[in-house]
Amino acid sequence: MSMGNMYSSKLLDDAVGQFAKLPGIGRKTALRLVLHLLREDKEEVDLFTEAIRAVRNDIRYCRICHNLSDTDTCEICSNPQRNHRLICVVETVRDVMALEATRQYGGVYHVLGGVISPMDGIGPDDLNIDQLEARVAAKEADEVILALSATMEGDTTNYYIYKRIAPYGVKTTTIARGVAVGDELEYADEVTLGRAMANRVPFEQTI
Amino acid sequence: MSMGNMYSSKLLDDAVGQFAKLPGIGRKTALRLVLHLLREDKEEVDLFTEAIRAVRNDIRYCRICHNLSDTDTCEICSNPQRNHRLICVVETVRDVMALEATRQYGGVYHVLGGVISPMDGIGPDDLNIDQLEARVAAKEADEVILALSATMEGDTTNYYIYKRIAPYGVKTTTIARGVAVGDELEYADEVTLGRAMANRVPFEQTI
Repeated sequence: MSMGNMYSSKLLDDAVGQFAKLPGIGRKTALRLVLHLLREDKEEVDLFTEAIRAVRNDIRYCRICHNLSDTDTCEICSNPQRNHRLICVVETVRDVMALEATRQYGGVYHVLGGVISPMDGIGPDDLNIDQLEARVAAKEADEVILALSATMEGDTTNYYIYKRIAPYGVKTTTIARGVAVGDELEYADEVTLGRAMANRVPFEQTI
Repeated sequence: MSMGNMYSSKLLDDAVGQFAKLPGIGRKTALRLVLHLLREDKEEVDLFTEAIRAVRNDIRYCRICHNLSDTDTCEICSNPQRNHRLICVVETVRDVMALEATRQYGGVYHVLGGVISPMDGIGPDDLNIDQLEARVAAKEADEVILALSATMEGDTTNYYIYKRIAPYGVKTTTIARGVAVGDELEYADEVTLGRAMANRVPFEQTI
């Protein structure tokens, strides 16, 4: 007897199986979610499935920055209040969301779609690096901020991008590495601590 | 700026909002699930939404036991291998699944749809108790096993059902209360321990 046959309904089994394919959702959670939907109004469940269908079929990537967008150009790239001469390079759309959540950044973005990772078979041509170079070549930016992961792959990608855009003479910066806010010094790893020390800033800047 | 506006896409925001309505799914998890679906093939996502639509629109309750079913009579009630003269009364379809998972029970079920709970405004008429009485009155069962929660509401409902079906002279039992398998005695609460002591069974039965 398979797990599926424990449910007296194939419809139930199918729906649970589909939910259980989602990352981090086991069969128990999947069952709980399906039983929840069974108690909901049909109209509510239609809204749920329609929202998923719509996001999958109709969402696209911004022509300029490759962020997720409902239109040809995303809300950030089409916002005249943003500084379009400041481009922050990130790996994924999740990073855009994380930076937007800080409310500290008023420039625009460029989403690479990942980092260079020979181990995973991801080379520069698999990322939106040509498109970044084109933006820089078109003199769109005064400054390119590299905001990739603090990993070996991130550092490799930073260096590769730097080499590609340096000929255009654009100012290139990377976000600071250091001890995370709220972390105790003694628990920071030595590389982070070393970077934090090397990149120390005048105290007056921090107050 | 609302959380929703952090996403540069209303389609994304809608889908995340719909997932976040599910119990136990916060906005962060919802976002992770939607971004996962965006990476999936369209056909996979169609299977997902179609399975949900189908289970919500086409599933029904078994005419006899009120368990979830794809057909008029559920697989358990239409299985000639089961003992149809042994009816186990449970609160929900989840309880049917839990008991089926033990593979210890060969009878059939009766799903009440909850327990009597004046605090929640649930009275006997909100549950499938008339239908249970009808099954007993029709002499369908030799024994009715009450398998409700070991709570005040469960005990109240047990007693109410007992009063309703006792006139028909059917044998009525309840599942054993006791120390959970794997639990240490000292951590069992006193009521459970008291019931376990009162309902002790000959050791030979347990080996």
